Amino acid sequence: MFSDYSLTGFLDDLSSRKPMPGGGGASAVAGAMAASLGAMVANLTSGKKRYAEVQDQIDEILPEAERLRDRMLELAQEDADAFYPLSQAYGLPKETEEERAHKAEVMEQALRRASEPPLHIMECTCEVMDLLETLSTIGSRMVISDVGVGAAFCEAALKGASFNVFINAKSMQDRDYADELVAKAQGLLDDGCTKADTIYKQVERGIRWSRS
Amino acid sequence: MFSDYSLTGFLDDLSSRKPMPGGGGASAVAGAMAASLGAMVANLTSGKKRYAEVQDQIDEILPEAERLRDRMLELAQEDADAFYPLSQAYGLPKETEEERAHKAEVMEQALRRASEPPLHIMECTCEVMDLLETLSTIGSRMVISDVGVGAAFCEAALKGASFNVFINAKSMQDRDYADELVAKAQGLLDDGCTKADTIYKQVERGIRWSRS
Repeated sequence: MFSDYSLTGFLDDLSSRKPMPGGGGASAVAGAMAASLGAMVANLTSGKKRYAEVQDQIDEILPEAERLRDRMLELAQEDADAFYPLSQAYGLPKETEEERAHKAEVMEQALRRASEPPLHIMECTCEVMDLLETLSTIGSRMVISDVGVGAAFCEAALKGASFNVFINAKSMQDRDYADELVAKAQGLLDDGCTKADTIYKQVERGIRWSRS
Repeated sequence: MFSDYSLTGFLDDLSSRKPMPGGGGASAVAGAMAASLGAMVANLTSGKKRYAEVQDQIDEILPEAERLRDRMLELAQEDADAFYPLSQAYGLPKETEEERAHKAEVMEQALRRASEPPLHIMECTCEVMDLLETLSTIGSRMVISDVGVGAAFCEAALKGASFNVFINAKSMQDRDYADELVAKAQGLLDDGCTKADTIYKQVERGIRWSRS
């Protein structure tokens, strides 16, 4: 199980020839790190006199960030579970006409199934991005840089998961289904990257020195 | 020690009020995931008849990717070790003139020390990016999406580590030293992001479906 991994064990398996974990699972871990950084910023803002006015918002953000962090690790596992049948389908025989037809059908279903977790990782990452956007304006200025790091990880998780949707969609025979999937992933990617840029601008104001 | 972490233990500590790990250590983990994906692509290209021509290059890339992955975890630890004195310096008393002078001096040294690991994380990430750039042209087309995921993680590691350099540099009294540090980080960030874009373009060709 994904949640049983040591950090080095996860990196070792990611480096290896094993079909899982792959880029999808790694994207979920990047998303989990982003959610964790959001939780950290909420924790370090909470209870501070200077931020008393936003305490109610912080009280909502913290459990939500922790929930999304845990959900990301579940999605990493779901990605591994959904990729396995696809990795097996590639090896099916294709000597006879019947074998080829069977393989094509199994492949199509496996490609559909393997595309779902990356898409869910993207949706979950957009939720993390929303929390970070709020934290970029209300969170403690002492840790504003960590909000920026979180946004960078969200952007990486979105790009990483989208590449997995795109490569699966490329091999699908049902082009209508594939096009819909690609459009959905592209929409999430574009929205997320726009939000990341808004956060970076907000963060930059807090971390750059100026003479004025 | 960083290398003893379980994946969930790392995320729990990252989420917490604890001063370490923070955004710097998390950036190193993102860099380690990027290096691992590079190693994975090298592993899945190695020994394949179709890629026999690039076997010599793959034989060089694989151990290098593994070395950079391990180095990243060392840098995550160095970041934690270097941040601790800074987190302590913030708490020094500043009632008397003498106390203020002492605190300013300790802070300046602690800020310098805390800036070094993020800068090394950036340098190490640029080395990973170079490997991925090569893999984007010679690596197995089956896993070209994972080269893209790796580049996205490198970009996130560069941004994340640079935010930590910038926020430390902002508080430094020696503005010449700070400006030099910021220029160095900005240069690595710009170079890395340009390389990431080159890799994305190469990857896009491999993962996007077209009618032609």
